Amino acid sequence: MNNITLQQAQQVIEAARQKSQETGVKMNIAVVDAGANLVAFARMNGAWLGSLDISIKKAKTARFFDMPTGDIGGLSQPGGPLYNIEHSNGGLITFPGGLPLRDAQGEVVGAIGVSGDSVENDHIVAEAGMHALR
Amino acid sequence: MNNITLQQAQQVIEAARQKSQETGVKMNIAVVDAGANLVAFARMNGAWLGSLDISIKKAKTARFFDMPTGDIGGLSQPGGPLYNIEHSNGGLITFPGGLPLRDAQGEVVGAIGVSGDSVENDHIVAEAGMHALR
Amino acid sequence: MNNITLQQAQQVIEAARQKSQETGVKMNIAVVDAGANLVAFARMNGAWLGSLDISIKKAKTARFFDMPTGDIGGLSQPGGPLYNIEHSNGGLITFPGGLPLRDAQGEVVGAIGVSGDSVENDHIVAEAGMHALR
Amino acid sequence: MNNITLQQAQQVIEAARQKSQETGVKMNIAVVDAGANLVAFARMNGAWLGSLDISIKKAKTARFFDMPTGDIGGLSQPGGPLYNIEHSNGGLITFPGGLPLRDAQGEVVGAIGVSGDSVENDHIVAEAGMHALR
Repeated sequence: MNNITLQQAQQVIEAARQKSQETGVKMNIAVVDAGANLVAFARMNGAWLGSLDISIKKAKTARFFDMPTGDIGGLSQPGGPLYNIEHSNGGLITFPGGLPLRDAQGEVVGAIGVSGDSVENDHIVAEAGMHALR
Repeated sequence: MNNITLQQAQQVIEAARQKSQETGVKMNIAVVDAGANLVAFARMNGAWLGSLDISIKKAKTARFFDMPTGDIGGLSQPGGPLYNIEHSNGGLITFPGGLPLRDAQGEVVGAIGVSGDSVENDHIVAEAGMHALR
Repeated sequence: MNNITLQQAQQVIEAARQKSQETGVKMNIAVVDAGANLVAFARMNGAWLGSLDISIKKAKTARFFDMPTGDIGGLSQPGGPLYNIEHSNGGLITFPGGLPLRDAQGEVVGAIGVSGDSVENDHIVAEAGMHALR
Repeated sequence: MNNITLQQAQQVIEAARQKSQETGVKMNIAVVDAGANLVAFARMNGAWLGSLDISIKKAKTARFFDMPTGDIGGLSQPGGPLYNIEHSNGGLITFPGGLPLRDAQGEVVGAIGVSGDSVENDHIVAEAGMHALR
């Protein structure tokens, strides 16, 4: 199993932090490894307290299913095939802001979760973090 | 970071309690500080037991995101951008009755959460508590 | 079932708060009713954050078994008859600082839990609160 | 209430990481703020997975009571005044490796928690992190 290193995780977080600063938003940024366990985390000054837990849950959710968190949210709605899947795993977050992280061979080595603003901005910042890995 | 004092929190609770009495409702009233930790609490005689936890969760939710709890509930509906956000932070409450508390400079110093009647009355009582601070 | 009123609980808390101030300590003070549910709470400015949960657990523990929390701690030691009873009820606290509250007829109507300093001071402050009831 | 910044927390973590590398140990390093909420975290490559949660709990415990975690462990032994305090606050860790972080005025602005080797080494690494703040 390939796995993200601490150095890579810190690069991902720094890229996400810089993107947040450029965008004028305050984010909680979490990176988990291939085992869905936290590797690195940063909460920007003044970021929402409630987004701390959400950012970690987004990162875990993205690695649990190796897909963007928002894709799961599309399936977990009332009437959908994964309705209320959020009750599993101690609580999932299924709206945008979590993305799998892949190495150069395309293998998933971890995931990033971002929370602190609109889900659109959360997603943009998570993408900036993701691009720092490759 | 400014923080609500115990004396201020007790004034907020007393104002909310008086408003409840005038309105003829029985409330659980919780005040948390800037760190989202409980500072003061009061459960009126005969108030719903199940509203104890809800009042505390409303106060925490309002501070977690620095907005009225009902605003979050508008975004967490099926199909909404924050669908099922309630699964984070050990359980959020996203219907009305929780409000951030700000000091004279507009900085958030805590939050109030009220539960025990209709959400409309919960909100009215929370507002009465909030106005006692300034 | 007789039950403590909010007014009585607030008198208990105020007496405990005054005793804390005289003693020069900063306390978390919780009062539960006959159903072991929180009625009133106060955290003094600068009191330990970790004592918030402990004060509530002390009050609940004292009502769960209608005895001072320290008495249970004497029985929950290694080799004792109630070894590790602290694992029950979502976590008990069995060192001093929690006391049952009785009405004039001697019936238990609630309990007080105090945490924020040495267990000796926690107990002294809890006693001061208890005496305010009768 | 003064509060540690993200930049300061990252300096604390980097100093602890360097000390770990010099010492030849692999650590989980967590920094919480004055509200006992996570600000920054790093898990070194190959560090024990079980130490992730322990490092965060050590940091929280140190801030909950504004003292080194090992001091609490001295009081929570069988027969001690705080026996089984670990059952509070969702789980405390009371052996060495957690230390309060103070600003130049001596005010507690957060805490560091380190876990991944012997408690002696955990403590040494936590101290190195602490010294980076001042």
